[in-house]
Amino acid sequence: MGGPLAALRGYRGNMHRLPVMGPAPEWDVSQWLGPEPPARTLGGLRGKVVVIEAFQMLCPGCVSHGIPLAKRVHASVGDEVVVIGLHSVFEHHEAMTPVSLAAFLHEYRVTFPVAVDRPEGTGMPATMRTYGLQGTPSLLVIDKSGMLRANAFGAVDEVALGVQLGLLLAEPDPRGQEPESRSSD
Amino acid sequence: MGGPLAALRGYRGNMHRLPVMGPAPEWDVSQWLGPEPPARTLGGLRGKVVVIEAFQMLCPGCVSHGIPLAKRVHASVGDEVVVIGLHSVFEHHEAMTPVSLAAFLHEYRVTFPVAVDRPEGTGMPATMRTYGLQGTPSLLVIDKSGMLRANAFGAVDEVALGVQLGLLLAEPDPRGQEPESRSSD
Amino acid sequence: MGGPLAALRGYRGNMHRLPVMGPAPEWDVSQWLGPEPPARTLGGLRGKVVVIEAFQMLCPGCVSHGIPLAKRVHASVGDEVVVIGLHSVFEHHEAMTPVSLAAFLHEYRVTFPVAVDRPEGTGMPATMRTYGLQGTPSLLVIDKSGMLRANAFGAVDEVALGVQLGLLLAEPDPRGQEPESRSSD
Amino acid sequence: MGGPLAALRGYRGNMHRLPVMGPAPEWDVSQWLGPEPPARTLGGLRGKVVVIEAFQMLCPGCVSHGIPLAKRVHASVGDEVVVIGLHSVFEHHEAMTPVSLAAFLHEYRVTFPVAVDRPEGTGMPATMRTYGLQGTPSLLVIDKSGMLRANAFGAVDEVALGVQLGLLLAEPDPRGQEPESRSSD
Repeated sequence: MGGPLAALRGYRGNMHRLPVMGPAPEWDVSQWLGPEPPARTLGGLRGKVVVIEAFQMLCPGCVSHGIPLAKRVHASVGDEVVVIGLHSVFEHHEAMTPVSLAAFLHEYRVTFPVAVDRPEGTGMPATMRTYGLQGTPSLLVIDKSGMLRANAFGAVDEVALGVQLGLLLAEPDPRGQEPESRSSD
Repeated sequence: MGGPLAALRGYRGNMHRLPVMGPAPEWDVSQWLGPEPPARTLGGLRGKVVVIEAFQMLCPGCVSHGIPLAKRVHASVGDEVVVIGLHSVFEHHEAMTPVSLAAFLHEYRVTFPVAVDRPEGTGMPATMRTYGLQGTPSLLVIDKSGMLRANAFGAVDEVALGVQLGLLLAEPDPRGQEPESRSSD
Repeated sequence: MGGPLAALRGYRGNMHRLPVMGPAPEWDVSQWLGPEPPARTLGGLRGKVVVIEAFQMLCPGCVSHGIPLAKRVHASVGDEVVVIGLHSVFEHHEAMTPVSLAAFLHEYRVTFPVAVDRPEGTGMPATMRTYGLQGTPSLLVIDKSGMLRANAFGAVDEVALGVQLGLLLAEPDPRGQEPESRSSD
Repeated sequence: MGGPLAALRGYRGNMHRLPVMGPAPEWDVSQWLGPEPPARTLGGLRGKVVVIEAFQMLCPGCVSHGIPLAKRVHASVGDEVVVIGLHSVFEHHEAMTPVSLAAFLHEYRVTFPVAVDRPEGTGMPATMRTYGLQGTPSLLVIDKSGMLRANAFGAVDEVALGVQLGLLLAEPDPRGQEPESRSSD
């Protein structure tokens, strides 16, 4: 995952297009908070560039960097890029319940949909484990074809992230051929 | 110029592509500092996305926002986007001479080429007047066809700027058709 | 309470000594977290300068200003000034339980004693009501004689706060006369 | 000079009173800018706590930390603490002339008196050499008796600085005896 990390950190030298890291696994969500997302499955967002901000409400780096970044992406390009918060609790489970999360989202003025990553006992939640997240905050970027293009742990360079999102927005919508292929049935 | 300003400030609602504001006028430069630019005329940069950061070395907003932003753009995508500093002195002329500017660029670790906007007496320098800059810092964005796409005074949203640069980088290089059109002579 | 507010905000003009606002009421605490305080009652801290940082764990201003300020006071002069956190929950009661607070204190590296302000139903907790706090974060400063010297809501000027603490530290310990006065019985 | 440095950095453990480092040498100034100081010699400020902020106008750390700190001290306790800026140019002499400095002070809204440290050829200026400053920004604290109490290079802890200034303000004015001694003439 060094590629995307490098691409999203203030890298020097060659500009890297975000590599295709393979199909983005479907998320596993136990509950949704905030506004209704355009779709409740990743599969339903094909054709859209998707940014997932994985966070914990009591993670200082998430509060100081991750959430503000996701809010800026949502404010700047939220009409074209789908921004989803993913509450991936892997510690202090009893302290970060949905009840506390709801109050957190209210106080921190989070206005994008937030999914609760399905708990699995006292360890990593389901989606965090599936994606092999290194911790929180982690930023996932998924392209219009549903391919994972970045899995970045920690702080990211905002200009570099914006450039990558612009390049992904400029990629063709894979569903362009669908009607044609359907007509061949 | 409300369009680009809106597009580069954390705007809400519809994502705006940067409008074409017309051909970017050639700059009028009296001196270059720092590394040699890819070309000393704007015309020589056709096919490149160009970001011009107009600043004054003793302008607090330039030191706290404009220069750091230009440095991040240069660090993040400087291999694809041409970043040029434009020292547009319109006040305290005697205090911001090229000699002082050279020390400023050294102390602030500015590593992109900096052009001195040609002085015209005690008022606005030539390029600042031609572009109708509202003050410093001002960010100019020029596309591969040499069209002015943004003229933003003050602080800009870094994510939004990055997205716009990504979209511009994805636009075709107008010189692609040149051979063809030539062959039609 | 304008006096202390003014004294702790970057005020202009005359330097004000913090006025004596009367005896500081005893706090009403339901639970203590973190290290054991020098005394569990305010009365037991006579002879000490005391700083109480009233906060809520999900209050953005507390996380960005109040808690960091209290941590800096504790780090700078914690050996002479007693720093106490007071968790005064007046909203989202179910979201900010002692269980969640304990995780918050761990994640935010809070190393001074924290008292839970005694809940009274769904409104203001007991100590917050007694002191007439305007909200969170609020900073209370109590002198060696147990007099309330400041009750400041919101952000405060760190230099001004430090100066006032230095002046209070320089005041005589009222217990110095006690033996003498006793001998006069 | 480790003592004052420790005392002014966010130190742990014992609270240190600023040690007496000996009599503060008289400064050597070639020019004054901004408002007239209460006295143009250090000797004329006996009975006052004095803070001297040594800086260079093109030193990034001075612009981001030193000058803002001096401005906060001046705004908070400027009526009791004498704040003096000392422009100690030891590099890029031709770039930081009084003409440029005057524009800098105007643009950065510096409202306390600024002294130009007397140049001595191309090296350290006179006062910087006399005080053995390690660089810029450096903060000098002088007590009411004219004793040097701190010589701190780099960033300092604002709360700790404030506490120390409060303690120095609480020290007796040595001139209290003067009338008496005079009467013995």
